[in-house]
Amino acid sequence: MIQAGMPVIECVPNVSEGRRMEVVNALVDAVRRTPSVRLLDYSSDTAHNRSVLTMAGEATSLKAAVVALFEAALPRIDLRQHTGEHPRLGAVDVVPFVPIADVTMDECVQLAKETAAEVADRFQVPVYLYEEASGNPARKNLEDIRRGEFEGLEAKMSAPGWAPDFGPARPHPTGGATVMGARMPLIAYNINLATNRLDVAKKIAAAIRFSSGGFRYVKAMGIAIEDRGIVQVSINLTNYEKTPMFRVFEAVKQEAARYGVTILESEIVGLVPAAALIGTAEHALQLASFTPNQILENKLRGTS
Amino acid sequence: MIQAGMPVIECVPNVSEGRRMEVVNALVDAVRRTPSVRLLDYSSDTAHNRSVLTMAGEATSLKAAVVALFEAALPRIDLRQHTGEHPRLGAVDVVPFVPIADVTMDECVQLAKETAAEVADRFQVPVYLYEEASGNPARKNLEDIRRGEFEGLEAKMSAPGWAPDFGPARPHPTGGATVMGARMPLIAYNINLATNRLDVAKKIAAAIRFSSGGFRYVKAMGIAIEDRGIVQVSINLTNYEKTPMFRVFEAVKQEAARYGVTILESEIVGLVPAAALIGTAEHALQLASFTPNQILENKLRGTS
Repeated sequence: MIQAGMPVIECVPNVSEGRRMEVVNALVDAVRRTPSVRLLDYSSDTAHNRSVLTMAGEATSLKAAVVALFEAALPRIDLRQHTGEHPRLGAVDVVPFVPIADVTMDECVQLAKETAAEVADRFQVPVYLYEEASGNPARKNLEDIRRGEFEGLEAKMSAPGWAPDFGPARPHPTGGATVMGARMPLIAYNINLATNRLDVAKKIAAAIRFSSGGFRYVKAMGIAIEDRGIVQVSINLTNYEKTPMFRVFEAVKQEAARYGVTILESEIVGLVPAAALIGTAEHALQLASFTPNQILENKLRGTS
Repeated sequence: MIQAGMPVIECVPNVSEGRRMEVVNALVDAVRRTPSVRLLDYSSDTAHNRSVLTMAGEATSLKAAVVALFEAALPRIDLRQHTGEHPRLGAVDVVPFVPIADVTMDECVQLAKETAAEVADRFQVPVYLYEEASGNPARKNLEDIRRGEFEGLEAKMSAPGWAPDFGPARPHPTGGATVMGARMPLIAYNINLATNRLDVAKKIAAAIRFSSGGFRYVKAMGIAIEDRGIVQVSINLTNYEKTPMFRVFEAVKQEAARYGVTILESEIVGLVPAAALIGTAEHALQLASFTPNQILENKLRGTS
């Protein structure tokens, strides 16, 4: 049971096994057996041969759960035998810690570093820090760290600038390396346009995404929703505090208007932090000097 | 401690004593001594000679707290001796129950009726139901029920259509009568205009408030904020589900534009239910098929 007012961190390990369910079950059990950790969700993809676990708890418990996950994964997953569509470096491939409630990003960075040190020490697995936990601009982006994958890891690790942050300077023979860090919660946010013109969705996606000159924390692509005869700007918002939802929405609306297109609707896929929606309301209502203390439920629950 | 997932009702009794602090303290103590009830706030107004207590809990505990409040108030407050600026009918003047979390309006109506029956039976105080708890259109509005005040109560109660819903058909000799019911949380919401033209604020208030043809759940007035050289549309929103914040905001914006005036900012005074802000975000983002289950904190707390 997660109590109100208690710090809550989310941890979303990605592991390189999505086909042998007895292995996935062993990993899930390792998390479930860890006291004070709540397993919120897990899902496996056979094409990717990869599973994603979502768990929540306090720092100490999550660290224990991640160690238990390595303990279960390393004897069961051999990257030399692993194939799948998704790029990967290690058996436990990526471990992000995400601040949810009553906890700072700095505390998640600290937790990532402590967990990385412990994993490297106990299992001799090299660990790279990423995103907010990384102090190296060339090693913030997961894709940059993972480029070359497990097969290219030994060569990469001996290249200048690629010594790991923790652990040995060579891959674990079967477990490869792990990327561990801290990041903001990701919001999967789609905006549907009242048109079937795919070129418009693609142009808008290009206009708003970071990689082609748009907002810093937006990834986006334009896709067709064939059965509805409409198109969609499909967005991943990687930091809703720095690139807020309403700003992205307004930008899409403006860009669409330039082509004579309107927004039909938008949708959030999966979960969204309450603060992202509250922030949108503050913007829409031009609220001045509003604080989370003013939310009735926060007052009742004794959290701010 | 109010746990997540537990039904939460707010109860906001208004009592006719705001000067003799030993009496107010006795009433506050009566609530504080009731198990499983949380006193969130209380405040007294000497000019009004009236105090407002805000408490929260489950139905059974709140009923016990209200009974305890009557038990403490009736021997200490004599309406025959009471003066103050605020209109009042009884020692315990008004008792609204407000649904907050995991509870329906119907359950609050039921609680109001059960509490009214118990109070009438134990203390021989006549009780009128109001707002959502009243089935009589002429007796929904608090002001209509309270018209004539304690001094006119005996005459009023013998007039056709004014028999109480519970209790004797004559006033309690010192305690008068009580108005009890269920209503939505009230949002005190002010919109500041980028002008010093008081006539504009007054015209906008008249346009949006129910009493002069505006929205059903809006009370509003235009006032000057002298020290800032601006004017304000000061709003009480009595049902944010049926008259949502964003609709009121947009209406004020439109009306202001008609006079060449813009909105400077808005402000929420005191508390606001999260759902009122989430609803505003849903509107602003044109969110389709969004459910409270998608809010991360709700999922973590195991409430929907």
